[in-house]
Amino acid sequence: MVKNIVLTGGNRGIGLGLVKELLKNDKVDKLFATTRDAAKSPELQSISDPRLVIVEMNADCDSSIAKAVEQIGKSVGASGVDILINNAGVLYAVDINAPIDRKGAAKNFEVNCVATMAVTFAFKDLLKAAAKASGSAQVVNISSELGSISLTWGPCAPRHFTAYSMSKAALNMYTKTISMDWKADGIRATSVHPGWVKTDMGTDAADLTVEESTSNMADMICKFGEANNGLFYNWKFEPLTW
Amino acid sequence: MVKNIVLTGGNRGIGLGLVKELLKNDKVDKLFATTRDAAKSPELQSISDPRLVIVEMNADCDSSIAKAVEQIGKSVGASGVDILINNAGVLYAVDINAPIDRKGAAKNFEVNCVATMAVTFAFKDLLKAAAKASGSAQVVNISSELGSISLTWGPCAPRHFTAYSMSKAALNMYTKTISMDWKADGIRATSVHPGWVKTDMGTDAADLTVEESTSNMADMICKFGEANNGLFYNWKFEPLTW
Repeated sequence: MVKNIVLTGGNRGIGLGLVKELLKNDKVDKLFATTRDAAKSPELQSISDPRLVIVEMNADCDSSIAKAVEQIGKSVGASGVDILINNAGVLYAVDINAPIDRKGAAKNFEVNCVATMAVTFAFKDLLKAAAKASGSAQVVNISSELGSISLTWGPCAPRHFTAYSMSKAALNMYTKTISMDWKADGIRATSVHPGWVKTDMGTDAADLTVEESTSNMADMICKFGEANNGLFYNWKFEPLTW
Repeated sequence: MVKNIVLTGGNRGIGLGLVKELLKNDKVDKLFATTRDAAKSPELQSISDPRLVIVEMNADCDSSIAKAVEQIGKSVGASGVDILINNAGVLYAVDINAPIDRKGAAKNFEVNCVATMAVTFAFKDLLKAAAKASGSAQVVNISSELGSISLTWGPCAPRHFTAYSMSKAALNMYTKTISMDWKADGIRATSVHPGWVKTDMGTDAADLTVEESTSNMADMICKFGEANNGLFYNWKFEPLTW
């Protein structure tokens, strides 16, 4: 079933790791990895696999998204996009015990929530096409355990995760909402927690290497089925509560 | 324990209803109801009770919040603020099956999340003062069942609740976070779902009158104790899942 995949933010960190791992799966026909600036994505460009297509896209800009969708649509044709992985995201630290940095707080929502909604809707027709062609399509939202209200352990000063956590809880609501609303179109949605990973965002203190996280996640994402629609999993395919 | 209460958005709807109901409680010493423009709040001004103080505050503006905090601080002195009710909120409809209205989506987060964080931090010292004076203080965030990821029933077209629901899920994360982080200061936080209420936001089709919702909520809010910290209740004091 896994054929054409689109992954946002493929130039570094977890996104780059997912690109490498997904390409190990020979059921993947084409992998479109988006990045804002292909020229500034040397690691992504160094991957030599004819199935990888680097697509420039700025998720903050609707015309840039439209251009990427058009390019990908021409490439996949009636097969559509089987899996859309919304990986691009930001963490703006906001200290809740100081006058609130409104712009920084809002930025977490604009990128992690609003831009993700814009990208996902823009790909909806290609997801529908894949569902029509092969029975189902899948949206994967890269969320975080920090976005689980039931599991949160506070703001984590001095890293000040609160606004990021709030944006990921909001993203989880988006996952759940489209999992219900787009079901009739054969489109599923699932939230994923990649673990605490050694990336620019996760820092070197993190538990997992990019490879440990993304090898498991890539495998899991390609296995998602109806039973996983509207739910939340960590990189070990263990369910998480909201 | 219930002495000084601050309630935001007291000029109409649920906020105005809560003002009326809270004033029925003779343990309330002072009730500060904020509104952007006192001159445009005739119903609030028509309430004749010496304990009610109308305070002009624009939650989008830090200097306006600071002025309100200063005014209230002078009035309450060392007693502080026992209960802060973050009631002010907006619902900007966003159709997730159309190109995303980024500004409208972001507005839900800016008002319901970021402004609430700014107001709550600005009142933290007065909440701490009350906790010092009488053992505890309480933040009440007026959320919505629509913000419960586990209970959501989708985007509810044509009303297009998704971005609002996402902002309320994020607000619930804020409730949970400060319930943990501010516990050492004696400050609790609880999310409340007022029910579907006949207001401008709820429309006339709603289940409950403002009085039915707010009479129950006012009673519940004044009873909140340690056992209710970091949790989510509807107007009937029934627990809700995140």
